[in-house]
Amino acid sequence: MNRLKAALEKIMEKGCDMAVISKSENVFYLTGFRPSARAFLILADEPILMVTRMDIDEAENLSIDVLEFKKSEDVKEKIESISPMAVIFEPSLPIGTFSKLKGSFKFTIEDIIGDLRMIKEKVEIEHIRKALRIAEESFMEVEVQGVEAMIAANLEYHMKINGSMKPAFDTIVASGVRSSNPHAEVSFNKIKTPVVIDWGATWRYYHSDTTRTLVRGEDEEEILDILLDAQREGVKAAKPGVKASYIDEVVRGVISEYGYEDNFIHSTGHGIGLEVHEPPSLSANEDIRLEKNMIITIEPGIYIKGEFGARTEDMILIKKNPKILNTLPSRI
Amino acid sequence: MNRLKAALEKIMEKGCDMAVISKSENVFYLTGFRPSARAFLILADEPILMVTRMDIDEAENLSIDVLEFKKSEDVKEKIESISPMAVIFEPSLPIGTFSKLKGSFKFTIEDIIGDLRMIKEKVEIEHIRKALRIAEESFMEVEVQGVEAMIAANLEYHMKINGSMKPAFDTIVASGVRSSNPHAEVSFNKIKTPVVIDWGATWRYYHSDTTRTLVRGEDEEEILDILLDAQREGVKAAKPGVKASYIDEVVRGVISEYGYEDNFIHSTGHGIGLEVHEPPSLSANEDIRLEKNMIITIEPGIYIKGEFGARTEDMILIKKNPKILNTLPSRI
Repeated sequence: MNRLKAALEKIMEKGCDMAVISKSENVFYLTGFRPSARAFLILADEPILMVTRMDIDEAENLSIDVLEFKKSEDVKEKIESISPMAVIFEPSLPIGTFSKLKGSFKFTIEDIIGDLRMIKEKVEIEHIRKALRIAEESFMEVEVQGVEAMIAANLEYHMKINGSMKPAFDTIVASGVRSSNPHAEVSFNKIKTPVVIDWGATWRYYHSDTTRTLVRGEDEEEILDILLDAQREGVKAAKPGVKASYIDEVVRGVISEYGYEDNFIHSTGHGIGLEVHEPPSLSANEDIRLEKNMIITIEPGIYIKGEFGARTEDMILIKKNPKILNTLPSRI
Repeated sequence: MNRLKAALEKIMEKGCDMAVISKSENVFYLTGFRPSARAFLILADEPILMVTRMDIDEAENLSIDVLEFKKSEDVKEKIESISPMAVIFEPSLPIGTFSKLKGSFKFTIEDIIGDLRMIKEKVEIEHIRKALRIAEESFMEVEVQGVEAMIAANLEYHMKINGSMKPAFDTIVASGVRSSNPHAEVSFNKIKTPVVIDWGATWRYYHSDTTRTLVRGEDEEEILDILLDAQREGVKAAKPGVKASYIDEVVRGVISEYGYEDNFIHSTGHGIGLEVHEPPSLSANEDIRLEKNMIITIEPGIYIKGEFGARTEDMILIKKNPKILNTLPSRI
């Protein structure tokens, strides 16, 4: 399997001879198996997947070796039996688990699989596009009226009926003054504009993530215009070879020109795939450079405390000519 | 605030003078504030909550000090400025973050807040009961017919309309042979019996978790009878003072009497509250003793590979006379 081979090469590049993969998205990425409970992929010359009893039947058809474990100590024992020189652990590994796995071997902490996952394969791009199609079609089936919770419930219902495994994240429907909080939870308030709707679907474990803001009146329209201007410049800049931080700089620059730099209180976007938020981050400190076949979001937002907020978010496939994957109009 | 005081006492009991709380459920438990992004509660004589820019406005009304941080190093700096002797970190802390926070101080890894959270206060019991009531009422509004995904979508829709913030977890509707997988994902298959439905609601961040299995025919009825027998014995045994592992022993014992010990492939239950799965675990290695006002699930299951499976799950409030919180009949 190419992904396993690429991972093994990454391990060697780092001067190690083993990686212990515990993040379930990474286990899935490398093995095609999605554990329903804790699982550890011991990645060395002969990869071994260690799963709990509940997963053993489902995992037994894999082409790599599968073993059952009861407690972390069983995994440690297996690792030590292979006598690794230097082991890579993932940054996401909980320290409680790490303290049970660490042994007499040297170790380092690196997100090697996250690096691989940034560049999407053809089949991954198809899955992400399908998730986005489900999300957009479902949105078209929902009336933006009534109370926030009803709109969110309808959207999630239609996504599931249309094949989404689950919402990519808690659907945000934040209206009126509540729209000034970028992560507002849905309420039973009757909506008034602006209405920020941030939603996504899941298809074969891949996600979509889109935001639209319904605006009315000059003040709200003006803010959305600024966001669309900023987003347009961001998309234009999102070419292979540029730093992810540069897109943030460009988008933030446009918003600053209009005097709203203090109202754009989150990053400009993020990679998306098996996780909704994955590298690269489109923010000031991100050194990763964009490459062909990355998929990112560009999502400028302006939040005016006590008044209202707005955000617009599309998914972009990085190519020589960056491609917006969304087909839904930016104004709803 | 009593919870903060209790946490500080726990810290001293462990011979430490600071804890760094990063698990969002624990931050919420101690401060009443639910961070939407990363947050660190530095718990010492003068507690300080460190949040990102996105959360700073929402957090500023808290009665404890709130500071903004940009990167983990800012949090480390703050910790070191207090010169702690010995710091408690949580087992759930990702090792990547831990490596940025650790300093010249001594540290230990303990889940002190998890210990506190096991015993539910009156208001917490009310929230959990409300979550359960929403889940059960919603279930009554849904017809168990058609395809699995449709039933799950309907259930989740009704829970949201009835006030649930979100499903407590991905709703399971697993029918026919798929019921033999305890964590089956919903499909677009038309249901046939048995139909295992495992669902929960969320109310003010507190969860419910219930399973019912619709059975038809003698074989399926017989399995459900065994599960109900096992569950009944488990509930009877769930008294203050007994080890959580003892409930597992009792329930597993009944299932073994009928010869199905190899088909009960998961633990007997778990604590529930701000997380769906929280301590204590009702499994063989759990040393924690039940105490008054814990809330646990008891959920025996029998899974016959290639044929079918069944599970029944209720929520139990630990009292001198353990109280089943569910009101829905065990046979649907």
